Amino acid sequence: MLKKVEVCFTPSLLPLYEIENAIVVVIDIFRATSSICYGFENGAKAIIPVATVNQCLAYQNQNYLLAAERDGQVVDGFDFGNSPFSYTRQKIEGKTIVLTTTNGTYAINQSKAKAYQIIIGSFFNLDAVCNYLYKQDKNVLLLCAGWKNKFNLEDTLFAGAVVYQLKQNGYTSDDAGTAAQDLYNLAKTDLYAYTSKTSHSERLKKLGIEEDIKFCLKLNITQVIPVLTGNTLVKLNV
Amino acid sequence: MLKKVEVCFTPSLLPLYEIENAIVVVIDIFRATSSICYGFENGAKAIIPVATVNQCLAYQNQNYLLAAERDGQVVDGFDFGNSPFSYTRQKIEGKTIVLTTTNGTYAINQSKAKAYQIIIGSFFNLDAVCNYLYKQDKNVLLLCAGWKNKFNLEDTLFAGAVVYQLKQNGYTSDDAGTAAQDLYNLAKTDLYAYTSKTSHSERLKKLGIEEDIKFCLKLNITQVIPVLTGNTLVKLNV
Repeated sequence: MLKKVEVCFTPSLLPLYEIENAIVVVIDIFRATSSICYGFENGAKAIIPVATVNQCLAYQNQNYLLAAERDGQVVDGFDFGNSPFSYTRQKIEGKTIVLTTTNGTYAINQSKAKAYQIIIGSFFNLDAVCNYLYKQDKNVLLLCAGWKNKFNLEDTLFAGAVVYQLKQNGYTSDDAGTAAQDLYNLAKTDLYAYTSKTSHSERLKKLGIEEDIKFCLKLNITQVIPVLTGNTLVKLNV
Repeated sequence: MLKKVEVCFTPSLLPLYEIENAIVVVIDIFRATSSICYGFENGAKAIIPVATVNQCLAYQNQNYLLAAERDGQVVDGFDFGNSPFSYTRQKIEGKTIVLTTTNGTYAINQSKAKAYQIIIGSFFNLDAVCNYLYKQDKNVLLLCAGWKNKFNLEDTLFAGAVVYQLKQNGYTSDDAGTAAQDLYNLAKTDLYAYTSKTSHSERLKKLGIEEDIKFCLKLNITQVIPVLTGNTLVKLNV
């Protein structure tokens, strides 16, 4: 079968795509899906993505770590937020984390009911994700979390990196995939320089978390692929 | 005031933008907004964009020309559709056309209730549109009609061409504007070659209207700027 890879630039557009028979890769480079990948690399047992801060609070006092981020900052009273540097082995090994973020966990929850399978992508596991995808007999939807349902550049760049690899393995793409691939091609020699002109990067710089940005652009530091099973992300056995 | 230019990639995302105080430029390069510009250049008196084929039919027998396109083809029983080559002086000079198309007139109607002003952009009137915009004390939203609410490349390229000019005049942009500008920069030396990889271009080629595509990529063949007044597009007096 001729497989296709499509790019959905924001969760708002998700209803336009047929995903019943597709693997959805959720992408929120700054920073939810980067942190999730890093968390599993550092031994997290499971991560439960929830849509709201209140849903996160419902897990209090049950031996979970609670992580909540809104508008780039840790929500008051939570163990930590959305920075990959919080997901250290010392803190999270063997633990289950309940996580809510502005965009990333929202995107996961939007696709949950319909997709054949949902996995988590970031530059940290780029090659692992691509290697997994083209061994499956499924179409692929790259779902960018964006920023509050608007398009963003950093998620698009990662989508473009995946499109590039899958096209080399015979996938066809849509216009959004072509655009993403061309933008990635422009940016790939210096992702940090390119993303420094993004709105989100500006936002994070103001919050003093520029180091997070640099870190989230590192390629292939893990082979882990987080996969959604029921309501919980776990390590995919490949 | 520091003015901003934002790009909305599809009408689906329009509710995310504040346009009460913005000029909205509606873009449907293949082919509605190109044909509208070309129609005014050839002496059309007015064009009434309507959302549905039935709304178009309601104008029958009233001395209007009726134009209807769906999925790239003229709807049976209509005078003509969406090809700029139908909008000849001989046919349309002094006439009022009622027009419905798959994407373009839908986008116009979606923004109608809220925008400060709605104008029509295409490569045909690129410089005229930019020159008009930066003389106004308003923010700008470039609204790509897309294809059935999905992203498309050709509308994005035009948006990028406008972003490029407005940024040179001091406007700030969003991530979508940055992406559009970078894609336009990649494509501008040969727009036809670049758009030949778009899905819509494939669709039109199959319909045998490749000449339409080439024509719609011509730059600055008119100074006309169509503007929506009530429910009707007329020539803007600048």
